[in-house]
Amino acid sequence: MIFIDACLGKKTPYTPVWMMRQAGRYLPQYMKVRNSAGDFLSLCKKPEFAAEVTLQPVDILGVDAAILFSDILVVPLEMGMDLRFVAGEGPLFSNPILTKEDVDALEVAKAAKQLEYVYQSIKLTRERLADDKALIGFCGAPWTLATYMIEGGGTKTYGKVKKLLYSNPDFLHQVLAKVTEVLKLYLEGQIQSGVNAVQIFDSWANALEEEAFFEFSWRYVQDICSFLKGKYPHIPIIVFPKGVSGYLDKIDGEFDVFGVDWSTPIKLAKEKLGNRYVLQGNMEPTRLYSKKAINEGVEHIANIMQNSRHIFNLGHGILPDISVENAKYFIDLVHQKTKI
Amino acid sequence: MIFIDACLGKKTPYTPVWMMRQAGRYLPQYMKVRNSAGDFLSLCKKPEFAAEVTLQPVDILGVDAAILFSDILVVPLEMGMDLRFVAGEGPLFSNPILTKEDVDALEVAKAAKQLEYVYQSIKLTRERLADDKALIGFCGAPWTLATYMIEGGGTKTYGKVKKLLYSNPDFLHQVLAKVTEVLKLYLEGQIQSGVNAVQIFDSWANALEEEAFFEFSWRYVQDICSFLKGKYPHIPIIVFPKGVSGYLDKIDGEFDVFGVDWSTPIKLAKEKLGNRYVLQGNMEPTRLYSKKAINEGVEHIANIMQNSRHIFNLGHGILPDISVENAKYFIDLVHQKTKI
Repeated sequence: MIFIDACLGKKTPYTPVWMMRQAGRYLPQYMKVRNSAGDFLSLCKKPEFAAEVTLQPVDILGVDAAILFSDILVVPLEMGMDLRFVAGEGPLFSNPILTKEDVDALEVAKAAKQLEYVYQSIKLTRERLADDKALIGFCGAPWTLATYMIEGGGTKTYGKVKKLLYSNPDFLHQVLAKVTEVLKLYLEGQIQSGVNAVQIFDSWANALEEEAFFEFSWRYVQDICSFLKGKYPHIPIIVFPKGVSGYLDKIDGEFDVFGVDWSTPIKLAKEKLGNRYVLQGNMEPTRLYSKKAINEGVEHIANIMQNSRHIFNLGHGILPDISVENAKYFIDLVHQKTKI
Repeated sequence: MIFIDACLGKKTPYTPVWMMRQAGRYLPQYMKVRNSAGDFLSLCKKPEFAAEVTLQPVDILGVDAAILFSDILVVPLEMGMDLRFVAGEGPLFSNPILTKEDVDALEVAKAAKQLEYVYQSIKLTRERLADDKALIGFCGAPWTLATYMIEGGGTKTYGKVKKLLYSNPDFLHQVLAKVTEVLKLYLEGQIQSGVNAVQIFDSWANALEEEAFFEFSWRYVQDICSFLKGKYPHIPIIVFPKGVSGYLDKIDGEFDVFGVDWSTPIKLAKEKLGNRYVLQGNMEPTRLYSKKAINEGVEHIANIMQNSRHIFNLGHGILPDISVENAKYFIDLVHQKTKI
């Protein structure tokens, strides 16, 4: 698989490309399946539907990898938290983590087991996916998940989790450690079900100062990476901590690919990390509104990366109002421009 | 004034300190005046009330500078746009900029004149403020204002303004140029009314990629800076573009102080900019939840900056649920820790 070769730093005939949120609302075919499935969580929980939308962007756009359709919050859900997705408000937990009893009540082994519907989705998808296309599994980073679990949903100020971080860091570490244990089992389950690589999304890394990032986020991500690399050394690991461009030179650990968000200049990421890690990214997502902007973005990134130690992607998820035509134009252009 | 001396890079007996949004909701005294004034916009428009809340943090906390109480959006308001503040939704413009006619209809000289209530607030405040305390005026950067004007309010994806940026950059430049002309007159009006320094807030600088930042934001900020420095060279200018830590070494221009947001390590800012500019910032705002976290944050920053070419501040606005006690603890600690 060209995608896996690229993850491992091998030479490839062209730079592989996929897009974060590529199985998503910009695709009419996705909306159709989603409406059949019922709500968003039902779509995650029904393997037949989840597999179908996972495969769509491969068929429609010709991306080099499929990414499992799911949501990072199915993990806290199966740890015992009550999750709802409210239109216009995003995810909400009715019972955020407040006390030691709340932490003690969180399931670990049982949670990983109850995520069986994800493993089923993976098996179904892998059966139907072409042999030369990779299937990427994923999870949220412990810090990002713990933040949702403590805040009870999205947040702009991170007030609750930050109060905890300063006033009772041990408590926060307990939550993080417990989430980390589930994620190890969860990613192991994904690998055993057939994913060819995994990505760890740390969307809220940018909520932390440098030192706090390494203490409350990165060490847990690296705990997961070390666990997986010890057992499954051939499975590439992609990390994606957002908004850490100020201290890229301190990034270190057992993973293969560093996902570059679009606010980090790819040239800077290459200077700081390019010798040690394969880079993934990082076209600015709104460039997909315009073919001219796609041309300029692809050319800029391709010129810097030179089809070496690079996987093309957006620097954040594809937006719901992007046209399928432009999305396909982007994928085709990457293949064409990076061909040896 | 110790604050002005520090802006100009002179040695001061201690590092001056103020906080962004220091005249704000965490102060019961502010809430009282705000409730008397009516809504938020009325507070901005009534000089007597605006002056009162501007002065409160100087009296209550002992900060070294007052910052004019106002909102960056009074500028588009007086350019002819219909602005409302909706509880829970933030600012909304009912008539966002869409067409050339919309741009042509925007007022310039008249707008700067109609901002008279701001000039009145400044005069009243300066009269009542102690002679050794500075009064800071401010405006939003053209890019940040234009984004609000085109999106019609806050945005997560910057979809509308980015579509324009890629599909019709000339149109966007027209909006930016017109806003820039008003801002020159507006800051000139503020200076003539008595402010001792000005700060230009570019809250949405981080919505732009590196090259686009310099083309669509920074050049207009620098146009304003050059204009002001040509006429009022003694008035310090503070710039605050958020989220540009990836390309600090390319920051250059006619200003005195660079405001460092909290996501940028102050050590990095010092390395890249400290020789050329005084730095302002950058304590992480949620540290104010805890005295221990305040101690650690102040010590960390003070150790790096060594009371040299530095103004203490938060790296973003103070949050509404911070206790006045902790805010005062922060201000006192800075004075104490940085005393020669």
